[in-house]
Amino acid sequence: MDSRITDNGKPKIEIGFMNTSTSLHIGGVIFEGFELLDFFGPLEMFGLLEKAVTISVIAEQAGAVASTAGPSAVATMAMSDCSGFDILLVPGGMGTRKLIANAKFLEVLRRLAEGSQTVATVCTGSFLLARTGLLDGRKATSNKRAFQLVKSQAPQVDWVAKARWVEDGKYFTSSGVSAGIDMTLAVIAKLWGRETSLEIANRAEFEWHEDSSWDPFARLSESG
Amino acid sequence: MDSRITDNGKPKIEIGFMNTSTSLHIGGVIFEGFELLDFFGPLEMFGLLEKAVTISVIAEQAGAVASTAGPSAVATMAMSDCSGFDILLVPGGMGTRKLIANAKFLEVLRRLAEGSQTVATVCTGSFLLARTGLLDGRKATSNKRAFQLVKSQAPQVDWVAKARWVEDGKYFTSSGVSAGIDMTLAVIAKLWGRETSLEIANRAEFEWHEDSSWDPFARLSESG
Repeated sequence: MDSRITDNGKPKIEIGFMNTSTSLHIGGVIFEGFELLDFFGPLEMFGLLEKAVTISVIAEQAGAVASTAGPSAVATMAMSDCSGFDILLVPGGMGTRKLIANAKFLEVLRRLAEGSQTVATVCTGSFLLARTGLLDGRKATSNKRAFQLVKSQAPQVDWVAKARWVEDGKYFTSSGVSAGIDMTLAVIAKLWGRETSLEIANRAEFEWHEDSSWDPFARLSESG
Repeated sequence: MDSRITDNGKPKIEIGFMNTSTSLHIGGVIFEGFELLDFFGPLEMFGLLEKAVTISVIAEQAGAVASTAGPSAVATMAMSDCSGFDILLVPGGMGTRKLIANAKFLEVLRRLAEGSQTVATVCTGSFLLARTGLLDGRKATSNKRAFQLVKSQAPQVDWVAKARWVEDGKYFTSSGVSAGIDMTLAVIAKLWGRETSLEIANRAEFEWHEDSSWDPFARLSESG
């Protein structure tokens, strides 16, 4: 978070979120086979909000949880011990293929999502959320290469084939992997204002695709 | 890694790296106060190479290591137990401010970098590498908001103010946070070919800035 330093004696840029008196609690769900960037891209952007947020990593059980690529992250709380968050983040990854048939996990996820103010999924994280029933009748999107699978396995959802992310009520769902970062900046814009998102993007030296309909990867789903 | 699935019975896209017989070993260094996206953005892209790579997370000591934003990752090996990697990845983060004065850490990092075939740093990871002396006389870049600090504390390096990333010999150094992903795709292009990088970017639904001189964030360093 190198942008925070003041190496020239000038005051740091002060924007609203730095002076906030309340901190929003973000809960990020991980599971065996979660996708690294699905999870840590959004958490990077939320983390740059500094004191405006507190981030907790949660899983079925507290402890180390391995990603699809290998590296493990640490969950400090069990999902079943949480009632809800200001923002619940659900990544995708190969691990979702097993979890969509895990009724116990889906029940805990459903309860957590119901108890949360905002729910944001990345990639096939929307596949998990769809299988709880909470996206029934709602618009949502998902990873473009898994699109046909997701659509066939969760047909009650109004899947949007071309979208970087979709917002429907309190639910934000993004396309694959990197799309989660663009979506997260949209969540931040909704809660803290667009200027804050632009400042966060600058700090992360990230080119935000601010238009949710920007989706050059939609063509990847055509072959499905 | 939802792109790996074949949900329509068609064969998965087969490209060179999937059939590789040798696996490159990637070592990623973490430390208290590492930046999440600096580290996991590149590891996402490397991870999509599947069997072509093996990823190890290392630190001064094996165990859980907290990022600047809070969440912890797990180091499975101590840096001092490693002699080098095919690719050594060094992220930045607020923790670098302390480590640049830690002679023991810098000595272990220097030995590891010397023993590695390719060394890639993200953000102020180049600050750490610069303080080992290995970048003396070489071109390199770093986070744009920390640029003046880095330049003043490591003056023997030929710092490039406007660059998404810089390649000099076996050393790749990127600008802040998100720039590490663009750089990683350049490393992949060098080792596995450009087509592989384009395929990986598609899988991650990531818009690769393939031109290393693309750097709209360079203006952020002007105020320093």
